[in-house]
This record gives sequence, C-alpha cells and structure tokens, in this order.
Amino acid sequence: MKLQKGQKLLFIGDSITDCDRARPAGEGLFGALGKGYVSLVDAFLQAVYPELGIRVVNKGLGGNTVVDLENRWQEDVLDQNPDWLSIMIGTNDVWRQYDTPFIPEGHVYPDRYESTLRALVVRTKPHVGQLVLMTPFYLESNKQDAMRATMDQYGAIVKRVAEESGALFVDTQAAFDAVLKELYSATLAWDRVHPTQAGHAVLARAFLKAVDFDWNKK
Amino acid sequence: MKLQKGQKLLFIGDSITDCDRARPAGEGLFGALGKGYVSLVDAFLQAVYPELGIRVVNKGLGGNTVVDLENRWQEDVLDQNPDWLSIMIGTNDVWRQYDTPFIPEGHVYPDRYESTLRALVVRTKPHVGQLVLMTPFYLESNKQDAMRATMDQYGAIVKRVAEESGALFVDTQAAFDAVLKELYSATLAWDRVHPTQAGHAVLARAFLKAVDFDWNKK
Amino acid sequence: MKLQKGQKLLFIGDSITDCDRARPAGEGLFGALGKGYVSLVDAFLQAVYPELGIRVVNKGLGGNTVVDLENRWQEDVLDQNPDWLSIMIGTNDVWRQYDTPFIPEGHVYPDRYESTLRALVVRTKPHVGQLVLMTPFYLESNKQDAMRATMDQYGAIVKRVAEESGALFVDTQAAFDAVLKELYSATLAWDRVHPTQAGHAVLARAFLKAVDFDWNKK
Amino acid sequence: MKLQKGQKLLFIGDSITDCDRARPAGEGLFGALGKGYVSLVDAFLQAVYPELGIRVVNKGLGGNTVVDLENRWQEDVLDQNPDWLSIMIGTNDVWRQYDTPFIPEGHVYPDRYESTLRALVVRTKPHVGQLVLMTPFYLESNKQDAMRATMDQYGAIVKRVAEESGALFVDTQAAFDAVLKELYSATLAWDRVHPTQAGHAVLARAFLKAVDFDWNKK
Amino acid sequence: MKLQKGQKLLFIGDSITDCDRARPAGEGLFGALGKGYVSLVDAFLQAVYPELGIRVVNKGLGGNTVVDLENRWQEDVLDQNPDWLSIMIGTNDVWRQYDTPFIPEGHVYPDRYESTLRALVVRTKPHVGQLVLMTPFYLESNKQDAMRATMDQYGAIVKRVAEESGALFVDTQAAFDAVLKELYSATLAWDRVHPTQAGHAVLARAFLKAVDFDWNKK
Amino acid sequence: MKLQKGQKLLFIGDSITDCDRARPAGEGLFGALGKGYVSLVDAFLQAVYPELGIRVVNKGLGGNTVVDLENRWQEDVLDQNPDWLSIMIGTNDVWRQYDTPFIPEGHVYPDRYESTLRALVVRTKPHVGQLVLMTPFYLESNKQDAMRATMDQYGAIVKRVAEESGALFVDTQAAFDAVLKELYSATLAWDRVHPTQAGHAVLARAFLKAVDFDWNKK
Amino acid sequence: MKLQKGQKLLFIGDSITDCDRARPAGEGLFGALGKGYVSLVDAFLQAVYPELGIRVVNKGLGGNTVVDLENRWQEDVLDQNPDWLSIMIGTNDVWRQYDTPFIPEGHVYPDRYESTLRALVVRTKPHVGQLVLMTPFYLESNKQDAMRATMDQYGAIVKRVAEESGALFVDTQAAFDAVLKELYSATLAWDRVHPTQAGHAVLARAFLKAVDFDWNKK
Amino acid sequence: MKLQKGQKLLFIGDSITDCDRARPAGEGLFGALGKGYVSLVDAFLQAVYPELGIRVVNKGLGGNTVVDLENRWQEDVLDQNPDWLSIMIGTNDVWRQYDTPFIPEGHVYPDRYESTLRALVVRTKPHVGQLVLMTPFYLESNKQDAMRATMDQYGAIVKRVAEESGALFVDTQAAFDAVLKELYSATLAWDRVHPTQAGHAVLARAFLKAVDFDWNKK
Repeated sequence: MKLQKGQKLLFIGDSITDCDRARPAGEGLFGALGKGYVSLVDAFLQAVYPELGIRVVNKGLGGNTVVDLENRWQEDVLDQNPDWLSIMIGTNDVWRQYDTPFIPEGHVYPDRYESTLRALVVRTKPHVGQLVLMTPFYLESNKQDAMRATMDQYGAIVKRVAEESGALFVDTQAAFDAVLKELYSATLAWDRVHPTQAGHAVLARAFLKAVDFDWNKK
Repeated sequence: MKLQKGQKLLFIGDSITDCDRARPAGEGLFGALGKGYVSLVDAFLQAVYPELGIRVVNKGLGGNTVVDLENRWQEDVLDQNPDWLSIMIGTNDVWRQYDTPFIPEGHVYPDRYESTLRALVVRTKPHVGQLVLMTPFYLESNKQDAMRATMDQYGAIVKRVAEESGALFVDTQAAFDAVLKELYSATLAWDRVHPTQAGHAVLARAFLKAVDFDWNKK
Repeated sequence: MKLQKGQKLLFIGDSITDCDRARPAGEGLFGALGKGYVSLVDAFLQAVYPELGIRVVNKGLGGNTVVDLENRWQEDVLDQNPDWLSIMIGTNDVWRQYDTPFIPEGHVYPDRYESTLRALVVRTKPHVGQLVLMTPFYLESNKQDAMRATMDQYGAIVKRVAEESGALFVDTQAAFDAVLKELYSATLAWDRVHPTQAGHAVLARAFLKAVDFDWNKK
Repeated sequence: MKLQKGQKLLFIGDSITDCDRARPAGEGLFGALGKGYVSLVDAFLQAVYPELGIRVVNKGLGGNTVVDLENRWQEDVLDQNPDWLSIMIGTNDVWRQYDTPFIPEGHVYPDRYESTLRALVVRTKPHVGQLVLMTPFYLESNKQDAMRATMDQYGAIVKRVAEESGALFVDTQAAFDAVLKELYSATLAWDRVHPTQAGHAVLARAFLKAVDFDWNKK
Repeated sequence: MKLQKGQKLLFIGDSITDCDRARPAGEGLFGALGKGYVSLVDAFLQAVYPELGIRVVNKGLGGNTVVDLENRWQEDVLDQNPDWLSIMIGTNDVWRQYDTPFIPEGHVYPDRYESTLRALVVRTKPHVGQLVLMTPFYLESNKQDAMRATMDQYGAIVKRVAEESGALFVDTQAAFDAVLKELYSATLAWDRVHPTQAGHAVLARAFLKAVDFDWNKK
Repeated sequence: MKLQKGQKLLFIGDSITDCDRARPAGEGLFGALGKGYVSLVDAFLQAVYPELGIRVVNKGLGGNTVVDLENRWQEDVLDQNPDWLSIMIGTNDVWRQYDTPFIPEGHVYPDRYESTLRALVVRTKPHVGQLVLMTPFYLESNKQDAMRATMDQYGAIVKRVAEESGALFVDTQAAFDAVLKELYSATLAWDRVHPTQAGHAVLARAFLKAVDFDWNKK
Repeated sequence: MKLQKGQKLLFIGDSITDCDRARPAGEGLFGALGKGYVSLVDAFLQAVYPELGIRVVNKGLGGNTVVDLENRWQEDVLDQNPDWLSIMIGTNDVWRQYDTPFIPEGHVYPDRYESTLRALVVRTKPHVGQLVLMTPFYLESNKQDAMRATMDQYGAIVKRVAEESGALFVDTQAAFDAVLKELYSATLAWDRVHPTQAGHAVLARAFLKAVDFDWNKK
Repeated sequence: MKLQKGQKLLFIGDSITDCDRARPAGEGLFGALGKGYVSLVDAFLQAVYPELGIRVVNKGLGGNTVVDLENRWQEDVLDQNPDWLSIMIGTNDVWRQYDTPFIPEGHVYPDRYESTLRALVVRTKPHVGQLVLMTPFYLESNKQDAMRATMDQYGAIVKRVAEESGALFVDTQAAFDAVLKELYSATLAWDRVHPTQAGHAVLARAFLKAVDFDWNKK
C-alpha cells in the first residue's frame, strides 16, 4: 500500500469527481465527499486500512475544464497542502467541442490542454509527495466515434505528462473499455459521460489498484 | 466466484438495506438500489464481472423487524423468484427495546426472532438456489454495553439458523469489530446503527468475500 | 395540404411525443401539448392554416413501449375518434435491451414489436381516415453501433407495416441522419434519445412535409 | 439564405423575446434560449442548415421598454459582437399607458420611443453586419381599439427607423393580422400580448422569411 | 335593506365567484370566502349590518359553465338551504368558444345555456326566499367585438330568465361599461375576464345596490 | 369628494396597512396594494371615480412603530411627493409593552410617540396638500382592559395632533366600537389586532367617509 | 407520586393537547408527543422518575369539541387501554360561538357539552384506573368578558362532572389566573387560546401537582 | 430564588443550547428561545415567577466550540449586558476528535479548552452579576468509553474554572448519570449528544435547582 499513515489525499476534477460533494469543504461526515469514485475510494480506505487514518478531500467542481482548475489551483490545491494529489480533467474540454460546437469560448483544444496541465503538474510537484494522473474517458466503445477519438487524444496527453513527471498514471478509459466489451455504454451512463455507481466502481478500483490497495488484507 | 451467469440476487432487510432505494422496484438505473451496501455489491459485480450479468434487487424497508419481513415475504421474496437471497434483519427488533422501552408492541424478543427467522428460512430454502444470512450489528465496541450484548445474542441466532440450513453466513459484527479497534464508533455512525459510506463498504466487502468475489480478476 | 378543415389529429407515442403534455387531456391552451414536436406541428398548423381549425391531441406517455400502447389503445385512441392518427413508438422497446440488459421483462423484441404494431394498425385502420407511421430513431451516426443497428431493424418493421397498410411513412432516422452528417449527436441530445428543440424541429418538419404542409402559403 | 456560416445572431427585446431564457447567458443547451420565437428560429436554423453553424443568443428581458434596452445596450449588445442583431421592443412602452395609466413613470411615449430607438440603431449599425427590426404587436383585431391604435403608431415608428437605416423590417402585426382574420385573439393569447406557441410560430416564420430561410432545402 | 336577520346568502358561479375560496366549505374565517366580490359583499354586510348576522357562503368553482352548475346543484345549492341565492354564470360557456374553438365539447351555446339556467331557476325558486341573477360580463368596451357580442347575448338571456322568475337582476356588464368609459380594459383585467380588486368592487357594489344596502347607515 | 383628479394618495403605517403589499413599490396591478383597507380604498375609488385617476401607494411595513416611520420618512414619504398622506401608526408601540413586557427596547411610550408623531406631521405638512390621521385601535370592547386603555390614550394623542395640524381625523376605534357592540372581538380578529376582511371594510369605510366618498354616485 | 410503574397515561383533547403531535400514534421519539403540555409532562416524568417507565400517549386533535371526542372515543381511548386518562376539552365548543357566531352547526352549547362529557366519563370509568379532568381555559383576566364568562361556565361543568365521578380535577383557569395577575394575556397567547411554552408550563405544572409529582426527588 | 426582579439571563453554548432559536435575537415570542432547555427554563420562570419579569436570551450556536465562543464573545455576550450568564460548551471540542479524527483543525484539546474558557470567564466576571458554568456531557453510561472519558476530563475543567471564579456550577453529566442508571442512552438521544425533550428537562431542572427555583411556590 503506497499511502502512509496520516496522509492527506486530495482529488481535483470536474463533475465526475464532484458528484454532489459538500461545499466549500468536500470532506468529513454526511456525504461530504459526494456520491462518486472519491467517496468509494475513501470508504474502502477507511474500511480496510482504518489504522492509516487517510484524510480524503474532494475538490471536484462540475463543468470544470483544465483552465478552470488553473484559476482555482492556488486556493483549492496548493493551500490545502495535500500529501497526495489526484487529477482527472478533460471531459468538458472535449465535450463542449461536440455539444455546443458554435460556442468556441467553451472549448479547450489539445495544445492549451496539454500546456496548462503540464504547467500545473510542474508547479505542484515540489509540494506534494505523490501525484496521480487519471485520464478523462468517454463511455463509447467505437474508437472511430469522433468524440471518443478526441478523448483518446487527451488521454494520450495525460499519459505523456504522467511519464514526464513521474506521476502514477491511471488509464480510466482502458478500465472502462474492459467493461464495454460486455455491456453497452447505456448501462453505464445515459450520456456516455456521467457514470452510474458501477462506473464509479470501475474508477475507484482503477485508482485503488494504482496505489496497491489490498482487498484481501486482514 | 459463486454467483453464476444470469442469476438474480435479492437482498431483504431493514433501513440499512433499504438506504433510499426506489419503490416499488429497487432495481435498475438512477440509484434504484439505494445508497448502501446493496448498491456497492451491485456496482462491483457489474464493474468486475460484467460478463455474468447478475441482476440485483433491493427489497429492504426502513424500520422493519423480522415480523415485518414475514408479513411481506410472499410478495417481496417468493414471488420474485430469486436465485440468491440475502437476509440481514434484527436491528429494529433489538433497538426498540432500548430506545422506546415503554412501548412493548415494538419489541421482538429473541424467541420470536429465532422462530420467525427459522420459519422463513425453512419455507424459502426449497425455492432459492443459495441463501446468505448476514447478522445484524451494533457499532459499539464495548461488548458489555447492554444493547451490544443483546445484538450479539441475535447475531448468534443468525449463526445458528445459518448452520442448520446450510446458508452462507456473514458475520457483519466481526467485520465491524476489526474496524472499531482502530476507529471510534462515531466515525462510522452517529447513532451506532446507520453506517457512513465507509461502514457500507465494510458490509459490501464482507458479503463479496463470502461469495468469493475476486478483486484482482482481469 | 392533406389535412382538411375541422379534422382531429391524434399523436401517440412515448416520452418523445409526451414531452410534458397536460394530463389527462393533452390538448388546449397553456402548453397542454407539451414541449416537443407535437406542439411544433400544432403551432405551425395554427399559424399557417388557421382557417382549417385542425384539432391536435397529444397522447404520448413517457416510458411506453408498443405493449403499453396496446394496453391503453381503446381509451386513448379508439375512444378519441381521431380523423388522423400518428404513431411513433419503439425507443423504449429497444433501449431497455441496452440500458438494463439484466431485466428482460422490460424488453420488447422484434417479433413482438412487429406483431403488436401490426395488430394495432389493422384494428384501427377502419376507424381513422389516415394513419401516419413514424419510425423510432437513435441519434447515433455510426450504423454499426449495436443499439443503432437494432433501432434500424425496428425502423424497417415500421416501414413494412406502413407499406402493408397504406399509411403515410415518416423516416425520422433518415431526417436525423442528414443533420448528423454535420453535427455530432451530443448537440441534438445528451442521451442520444431525447432531442433538443432543434431535434424536435427535425421531427416536426418531417411530419409536416409528409402531409404537404406549405411553408410559403399566404 | 442571408445568414452565413459561423455567424452570431443576437435577439434583444422584452418578455416575448425572453420567454424564460437562461441567465446570464441565453445560449447553449437545456432550453437556454427560452420557449419562444428565438428558440424556434434557432431550432429550425439548426435543423435545416446544420452546416452553417449559426450561433443564436437571446438577450430578451421581461418588462423592458426601449429605455431599459438603452441602459444595458453596451453590455448586452455591443460587447457581444453579434454579426446579426434583431430588435423587437415597444410592448411595455405602450402597455403601461393602458394598464397602469396613473403611474406615468412607466410610460414611454412615442417621441421618446422613436428617438431612443433611432439612437440605438445609429450607434450600433457600424458594428453589426445586419440589423433586423421587428415591430411590436397587439393581438387585437379591432384597429379602432385604443391600445391597438397606439401600438400601430409604434409599429410605424419601427418601420420608419428601419427604412432610414436599411435594416431588414419584419411587420409582426401584419403577420398576426392574417391569423386574426380566422381566429379570435383569445386563441393566441389570453392577455393579447404573450402569445401561445402558435403565436411564437407566427413570429419565427415572419423572421425566417425575412432572412430567406428555405423550408424545402434538402 | 332587503336581507333580514339571520339569513343565509349563498353565491354560486365560476372562477370569478370562487376566487380562491376555501374547500369544501367557502365560509368562516381566514379568507374562506376567497378574494373576490363575495368576500367584499360579506365584509361590508358585517361591517355595516353586524346586528343582522348574515351568513354568507361561497360555492363558486373555477372553470364552471352552467352545465357544471347543474351537475352539482343538489349538493352545493339545494342541500345548503340558503335563504338567498345569487347566480353568476356564463363566462366559460362563452370563452371556450373563443379561446379553444376547435374543442367543441367545452362550448355551451345559447340554447343550452338558456334552457339549463331556466331549469335551475324553476327548480330552485320554491326553496329559496329570494333569487339574484347576475349577468356574466366581458371587460371589452367595443360592443362589436365578437366575444363581447356573444357575452351580451348571454346577458340578455339572464335578464329574460330573471324577469320570468321575478328574481333580482344585476347587470354587471352595465356596471363595468360605466367604468370602461374612463379606463382601458387592461386596467381592470389583463385577460378581460378576471377582474382586479377594483373590478370586484364594481361587482360587489352592483350586488349591494340591488339589495338596498345603505352605505351611510349609522 | 375631497380627492381631485390625478392626485397621489399615500398610506403609511404598520402591518395593518402593509397587509402583504408588493415591495419595494406598493402600487400597480397584481395585488401590489396588499389585502387590507388600502386595497379596498383604492378599489372603490377606481370603481366609483374612475374619471379621477387617483394613484394610491401603500408604504405600510409590518412591525413598525412611529420610530420606524421616522427612520424611513424621507425615502418613503417625502421623496414620494404625495398629494395626500394618510398615517395610521401606534399598534406596535403599544402592543410590545404587553406581549413582550421584559424587552423594553421595543416599547414606545406615550411621550416619545406623541413627540415623534407631531414632528413628522409638522415636517410634512408644507409638502402635502392634505393629511389624514387615523388612530390605532384595539379590538377589545372592554375599555378597562389594560391594553385597550393604553391604546385609547394613543388614539387621544392622534386626535390632539390632528386638531393642532388641521389634518382630517379618522377615529378607527370608534368605528370598530360600533361593530363590537354587536359582535364579539374574535369575529373580527383572533389576536384583536389584525382584522379580517370585515374589519378592513370598517377601516376603508371610515376613511372613505372622511373624504366624502359618495357610494351612490352615478 | 400517584402514577405507578409501567402505567400508560393517555391525554385527549383539542389543539392545545395536540400541539403538532405525530400521527396516527402520538408517542415515542422525535417529538411524537407534540410541543405542548403533554410533552412537558412526559419529559419531566422521564427525567425525574425514569425508574417508573410511564408510557405517555397523546391523542389530542386540533379543532375538536366534546362531540368530536365522542365520535372517536372507542378507537382513540377505549381501544388504547390506558391506566390513566386525562381529558381537557371545551375550548372550541365555546370559541365557535364567538368567532363564527353565524355558523351554529359549529357551536356546542352547555347542555350538550355537559351531557356528552358526563356520558364519556361514565362509559370510561370502569375501564381506566384513574381519570383526570382538566378545565378548558381562556387567557382573559376580565371575568365579565363574554367569552371568559362562558368558558368559566364550562369549567364549572367540568368540576361538577369530576366531583360526581371521583376524577382528579385540574383547574387550569385558576392556574392561569395566578399568572394573569402579573402578566397581560398577550404575553401568554396572542389569541388568548393557544399558549406559549410558558403557558404550557403552567398546564404541565398544574397536572403534575395533581398527581403528586415531586420536583425535589433525588 | 437567586434571580431577581427585572434581571437579564443570557445562555451561550452550542447546538444543545441553540436548539432552533430565532436569529439574530434568541428572545421574545413565537419559539424564539428554541426547543431546548433554555426555553424550558424561561417557561418555568415565567410560569412560576411571573412577577420577577426575568428576560431570557439564547445565544447558543450549533457546532460551536469554546474557540468559536471566543470569536463572538464581545458581540454576543459583553455587548448584551446580561445580569446572569450561563455557559455550556465543550461537546464539539471533544466530539470532533472522535467522529472526524483525521481532520485535526476541528479538534480543541484540553489545554486550549481550559485556557480559552478561563480567559473568557476572567474577562467577563467583572461585567455580569452572576456566572453559571454547566459541564458538557455525553449520554453514555460506560465511563471507560473513550469519548465519555474525554468528556469527563472536560467536565472536570469546567468544575475547576467554576471553583476558581466562584461561578455557580451545574454538573449536567451527574444529572444525566442518574437517569442513565434506569434508561439506556438511546432513549435520551440517538447520537448520545442531542437530547430528547426528556433530556432537556434534565438540563433545565439541573439549572433551576442551582438557582433555587421553588417548584411549589404559590
């Protein structure tokens, strides 16, 4: 298990991370961590490793792109002093190109996505013990689908930035693709973006595997 | 993995099972399975074993005792024709003795609890492939606490009935006791009864272990 | 223009037809016709052909399959004595196979779909002056997509039944395909099923063309 | 078709334009354009000319007079940089003279109406490619009715300003009068001001005709 | 003053009479008489003639035509045993012909209106001490307006029935016409049907004059 | 009739004047004048003297004492430039002495009441054409009741200030006393302070009599 | 202390007893006993005599008269098998004579009040161990006030019935009169009927004194 | 009785004191004092000692620790000029250590608790006539329970500070322990912290005994 006693683990991202978390602080009791993968990660860490006392904080915000993250980075990441930081961003950067194609202000194209993400990682690395970069994903099994193809391009950027920076890399799209071989995408999300609880379980498991969580621990 | 392709798995119980499930049918999309351990079991089954197509149904009902289960058994269990049936009941049978001691109509004492539970199991066994009996639990680490002691007595009844009938037995109290060694009960539940998401993770993991769920399955 | 003075035109279907119509009677003022293509058809008929006094009635019902239509056919169609009847059904018959694959009670497979639709048409034809059959559709441009392929199969059934019965045939999928060549499906519907106002305009225009509506009429 | 690829078309006006649009930005998905003629224009542009990618923005505001428009002109029109601007204003300027005759602060009399509207047009013309001026209207067929007569006077002002400035002119009152020959005004609006969906279809069609929209385009 | 000590005065009619009265019993404290002319009549009777102890009951029901009155006459009029009965009906009988002209089931034409009203009066007269017949009205000053002309026709029927039966006759249209000479109809009602408080004052005063109410009584 | 064409009549006071009026401006359509005597005065002025076009404004505010009036006098009275000003204040000045006797900050004793009221009248008189001073009242017929006796003392102050300043004087307590001879106070107000509609009719009639309103005017 | 271990004490009455109790069963946790004197009695019995385990049940119902009690006596009193029964009724029997004097159906006059109350007591006495009769009260210190005088008359009836039947008698009016010597009635209740918490403390203390509750018990 | 005529008694604390009090001022009618022990103390003071006219003010605030009290001390205590001040704080200082152990910012450990409480007492003593210090409590009868043991430690601090400063000391834990000998804690509070009405009665009685309240006073 890579997480150590007393560490603080902060998740940042968009609505998939947010998932109805409490505001302003996404931590503590009473569903403060939201209803998504962050809450599942926290629940299983507490259930299986109660002795570690990991403090999980959710700073996801619905509708965010990487540019929005940049705007709140100081307050919502650096000022929080996390030991671990997990970033999953890019869904809206891509989606707005496809659902509101006539409103270009909302689009974040690959170049800007990559440079902004890289800058955040470079700026943050000295201050956190460990970084986790999770790809954005699209619950569409056809890799020729236009939006899926674009999302894969953004996922490749995340991989590149992870490798450059030595961050842990979580390929959420690959994790979902394994399930999409068996289930049609509508089972996991009506809009191919916001997953059901099962989809969040896919995300949580992918994250937990990356940190060497041991399900069978006594 | 003991669950097989295309099987139907029905959970019945009280508010801990219910957890805001949809009515009348606690199955399908949009949070129909509620927010508790049943939803977690379903999510991880779908995430890890999508090829099995397990159908999970939640028939928990807040406030129920074993006597209430008996009253709705035909409609909510037998008429559903499940392949697997999981029962977790007893919290209210015990709790009412302690929170409203002057209202005896609400109390279900050990004799009645045992005979009713046994009758349900005997009546149902021929019709379902596999039974799972989960103990009720109380999130209090002091075994001399009056209500904890009573709850343990009811847990022992569940164990006895499970052994008699060859049902899978899930000792939820033991699973929680492992966590309570590290965390004070208020972390898992303000009222020592209704768990946080972390408590539901304890329950879901205990169930999944009992059916030989493999977290590391490819 | 095929519609004639004083005729009653009844639409039946699922949520795409329903679109928040009033209950029990989906006709009259104050948005009673809902927010979808039925309301658009009515609005343009009144705006361009006020002298005809066409009475439009909406009997769509969210979640319906062809089997649900059959159950309410006497009351909601025959008892209404429409001069024109337009049917658009099949979305849920197909969708449930893909979003809740483990709950087969909700699925309506092609054989049952075809025989039920045909029976309704045969039973109704003698009582209405003119029938319009609109295909169900799926806002996915990839014809190899599993659900799109199934939906096309249902569309072909509608075409077959229309030809047999001499009903007017409206190929809504073809109408959408023309738009999907230019716009990604997420622009028209986040879930690829429930269209935006623009999607309803596609449907209304396809219907109005089929009845020889003249946009440029003085 | 006068609108060209990639252009931005902004509508400004009162509650008839507003019609429950989103705030602050009346554009994008989820009904952001409101429920009136602006939404219909957008829907048919997207449905019939998807390849043009016209961006429609709604800046109508309930209760506005031409004086209110003037107060928010910089922010809501000039700062938006539209290629096309459509103005329909005057209803409240007139109506307040008739429904609250004792509160003169709310009245905008013809002189002020004309000079304010002209000033806005003169100021804006250099910055937008094309202007559309739509008359206000009153759904009363009796031209001797006091409020109808006043509204016609304001419509004449709009026509004059349109001619002076070379703007496209849309005579909404004339469009409605054609319908009012067949239907009593209560069919189109209980208060003779806020139209039903059919009335909005009249407005949308009048606008679309003015920009040479082709209903029968393949 | 024609009303005498301890008498019960019942008003029946449509939404103008109803005006948010309590259900099922429109009498007593806390606004039970609604916000319209019935409440005003009651208020001034109590304020000026407290010693008479007149009991006022409101049985108006929104949307009612004379046919609807007939359907509830036994329960809502005869079973109440009023000493005085005031009827004002006809608005909806006429309005539906104009606002939903294509839905003829909702129309009550003059013949049916007259015969139904006459039958109710004949049937009721032996059981109540005094009848008051109030005309329906339309807040439109142009007597050539189609709906106004029809409403006048219904008013004439009320007058005829009043004369035949010896009922007190209240010409509400005439009372409003006096005001409409000075004020545009929109001041009294946006939809020309449901009056403001000022319009209800016109109605209340017309009624009170008919029963010889003395404003200057000590 | 003392009110003249085109005059503005402003009422100020506490909750009895306020009565749910609109904010910030208590004038215009849609119940903006509230549900009390102000609305009744306005309604009957419009119904009987439509040719005068009297503009009625309600600036009552629930809970106000004369000290609260003083604090908002510039904005809510002087800046409004009324031709007529009607003041009814004092209920809360007295009531707080009786319902929360231990909280003296809320009490306004006779000296302060008199000096504050006189100062407001003196300051305002030069700016308004006509002043009306209405006494506060208490719906208790027993003049020996402690709170009634105090209220009478405040009423006497109002009378004195009216006489000094030549204002019209309306003795609301006397008007109510006439009714209380016949009806127990609970018929007019459960709390002896906030009247029913009948109580507001008493107030409106007392006001209208003071301005020589003619009920029988043609 | 007259109450003994394990006894059930049932209160019946009107809104003063009801005070927002739970339905259908006014007993148990979470404010089920309401917010009035019944809840206070229960709270102090539990706080001071926890070893007695007294079960308190609230069956008050807002608006009830003694006639309403009679209608639900079998179900709400006899079927409950209480050891102690406390009755406080009469407020509405009197109040309706004063607040809605023109609606005689709502009035219960002294003869009917006395005979009905006596019949209930006679019928019930054999089945309950101990009866408590509490007078109704009116928070008006002036004994010449009409409604107070009537209420005193009803209180005298309660006293008479208590003496005949050997019930414990609680003179709530006397208890309040002691307080009203110091405080004006508006401090205890705006409507002189529904007491503040302080008024309920007066009632609870009067009851507890009657059963020899010992405040200073260790 | 230690409280004297006309004194002001202010309570400050956390949610147990707050209990839904009005904001910003927790005093006056209509439940402004909340639903807890403060309201009970006020009610019985008014009921039994109406002639003293004690003014009770509630300044409790949910979630507060002693550090939060310090932050609002000037405004909420000193500026109020109370004659008596009662402090009950510490629950959250302790609870946060047990329910959210991983969020140390929320914890107030014994040293800081003691120094902060002492500083407040020292600073305030010269300005109030009499101080009452109430211990925090935990409704757990097992003194070896971790959180109970900590709470007892905080109670001991309160006792020490009370002795040093000559404040009246109220041992709420001891008062509850007497009840917990008879009743299981769940009867008094599901979360062992927020008491039922019975628990508030324990608190109110403990306070009233400390000020020599005489239940049997005439």
